[in-house]
Amino acid sequence: MQTPWEYRYANRTKRMGSSVIRELLKLTEQPDIISFAGGLPAPDVFPIQQFKEACNYVLENNGPQALQYSASEGYRPLREMIARHTGRYNVQIEPDNVFITSGSQQALDFIGRVFINQGDHIVVESPTYLGALQAWNAYGAQYISVPSDEHGMIVDKLEEALRIGPKFIYVLPNFQNPTGTTLSLERRQQLVELADRYGVPIIEDDPYGQLRYEGEHLPSVVMLDSKHQNCNGSSYTGNVIYMSTFSKLLAPGLRLAWVVAPKEVIRKLVHSKQAADLHTATFNQVVAYEMGKGGFIDEHVKVIRQVYKERRDVMLETMDELFPSEVHWTHPEGGMFLWGILPQGMDSAEVFKQAVERKVAFVPGASFHPNGGGQNTLRINFSYSNPDEIREGITRLGTLLKELVIQK
Amino acid sequence: MQTPWEYRYANRTKRMGSSVIRELLKLTEQPDIISFAGGLPAPDVFPIQQFKEACNYVLENNGPQALQYSASEGYRPLREMIARHTGRYNVQIEPDNVFITSGSQQALDFIGRVFINQGDHIVVESPTYLGALQAWNAYGAQYISVPSDEHGMIVDKLEEALRIGPKFIYVLPNFQNPTGTTLSLERRQQLVELADRYGVPIIEDDPYGQLRYEGEHLPSVVMLDSKHQNCNGSSYTGNVIYMSTFSKLLAPGLRLAWVVAPKEVIRKLVHSKQAADLHTATFNQVVAYEMGKGGFIDEHVKVIRQVYKERRDVMLETMDELFPSEVHWTHPEGGMFLWGILPQGMDSAEVFKQAVERKVAFVPGASFHPNGGGQNTLRINFSYSNPDEIREGITRLGTLLKELVIQK
Repeated sequence: MQTPWEYRYANRTKRMGSSVIRELLKLTEQPDIISFAGGLPAPDVFPIQQFKEACNYVLENNGPQALQYSASEGYRPLREMIARHTGRYNVQIEPDNVFITSGSQQALDFIGRVFINQGDHIVVESPTYLGALQAWNAYGAQYISVPSDEHGMIVDKLEEALRIGPKFIYVLPNFQNPTGTTLSLERRQQLVELADRYGVPIIEDDPYGQLRYEGEHLPSVVMLDSKHQNCNGSSYTGNVIYMSTFSKLLAPGLRLAWVVAPKEVIRKLVHSKQAADLHTATFNQVVAYEMGKGGFIDEHVKVIRQVYKERRDVMLETMDELFPSEVHWTHPEGGMFLWGILPQGMDSAEVFKQAVERKVAFVPGASFHPNGGGQNTLRINFSYSNPDEIREGITRLGTLLKELVIQK
Repeated sequence: MQTPWEYRYANRTKRMGSSVIRELLKLTEQPDIISFAGGLPAPDVFPIQQFKEACNYVLENNGPQALQYSASEGYRPLREMIARHTGRYNVQIEPDNVFITSGSQQALDFIGRVFINQGDHIVVESPTYLGALQAWNAYGAQYISVPSDEHGMIVDKLEEALRIGPKFIYVLPNFQNPTGTTLSLERRQQLVELADRYGVPIIEDDPYGQLRYEGEHLPSVVMLDSKHQNCNGSSYTGNVIYMSTFSKLLAPGLRLAWVVAPKEVIRKLVHSKQAADLHTATFNQVVAYEMGKGGFIDEHVKVIRQVYKERRDVMLETMDELFPSEVHWTHPEGGMFLWGILPQGMDSAEVFKQAVERKVAFVPGASFHPNGGGQNTLRINFSYSNPDEIREGITRLGTLLKELVIQK
């Protein structure tokens, strides 16, 4: 039945589409399901005691400021702390190169708001992060997909895409969501050079960069660009907008993330923030600063790495043991996800339905492909469930997959 | 100097304009200025001890949930609490009629996102709340101004505006920002009937409804509409989208507000939230619920009323005593602002510059008029400064105004 409201909605609401993933995740919320579908951090690693201490300290020493309205660009001591942290990775910036957002999703939304006109082309890896597609669909973005392999985006195929004249290139170089793969150093350098040659900015989304369980840390794209552009001053003026988040370092329920970019870009993003929600919660920013200022986050990341590495290892071992040989998967060096590839012709959305009946869940991979494809792929999260649940859930899934592969 | 970034911004960034008010407020941030310019609650009334207790309780009893990702529509117990609160004012709703946003500014932004196509007309009071204009400018709104007097919007002039076919009507019925005036009961009823007759929705923005210092509480527009539409079931299906906030009841640094609307509208708004920032900070919602669930907010509002009433009274008395008789001002029955009207031909932006030199500030009124006018008006906040500062600041301003009126 149509109601008068139907006729009142703006045209862009049609582009917003329905959130397939959200609807699907609801299916996985039954308490007896072992869900590898979400992208949740393990609540076991939330530093609850340190949160308590920080809340008490802030309210006792800085309550009136922490509870009041504050600046749209973010709490200055937190921006200073992020600028120092960024400097450790050889990108020299000032606090005015840093902008605090209410989670990375908001940074993606503001990037859409500031850059995307209806019909603009955006270069993405295929598959890519679904939240970015959701954010930019609302602004009428079109996507140019560049395929990826076990070393990330196949940069050799990027140049063709750049000739179309895209607004920007979006990449997740470290332990990508959804695939878990990492962009190789050689490709990072190629990416920076190509983007510079064609004058196309890069959005580097790096939620998991700190969560590496093996191998060497690779320089970020923004760092390589800073070197490439000879940005040796105290303020980055290059070609990359870098994003990261406290969601995976402290807790997602705070909604705290940050953007590093040239100051002129930060000013535009801050302007969006003024109209969109004034500023990110002051209290949360002051608490995160108190937790981070003495080096606690560095220590805490070691704990997270240990916990997630064990979970990844248990998952990979169980898959090695129980998954049929026709199924392939990535071996992520960090992050929270791995990526499964079923034999051609198998539909992971069909597998999903049967998996839910057997009380185990994942995300079918098609949604991560903005221009179609990927029906035989799936995303599996290893950070949320504990090792026993992982063993049990992967056993259920492996058993199902064996049956289905034989039937086929 | 133009940089390559200039050519990359989306067309809508031009409509976003520059934030005149923000720039101007920066002038008032010198520590020795007595500023009546901002719209800040008094930090003296922030219930810091209760915040501490709630943070500790939540982290000890519900830490993993309070720090995790959560639903885009908001924390269910908080939505249930708001539904009960709304029921006390005779609007029967269910939790699914309630949506939690990161401050009221975000609700305004999402309303723009869901309803406004480029060029759509919106009916506003003139003057009206600047934050709404900033939010909706980004979506290309045009404004139809309906003039107001000491009883709020002159509803007799509304019908003409409705014939133009606006997308919605935006009103702040209680202690309006910027004027401090309250829409009379008769006009509220007329407004509801006219909006229903023309099939135009009403956005009722009510941040200050609880902060009444004299006179009788008037029924909200959503309540009158609920009665008018015979919505006596358990779920409101009328014509009004109602907004309120915890910023003035607890603290703005939490960024917590809410929307009450028909469920189908809530679903559209929630959809915007998924793309915009996933959800409002879980921790803040759980803490606000813990503070509110036992009735603390009702008790605390009495304290706020007492403090703000005294400040309003001191301000009005000092103005009576020291302002030249050529200047007029409103007598707000609640809220945080009053509105000054200088003699025709005087420019409050010029007065502002001289006032800042004398270390007192307000907001010139022109910005609150979307279609021009109001050069001789000003907004004065009485909630933030303490009574001594109010006496001193109003003395400085009164002295200046006397000099200027004589010169004129």
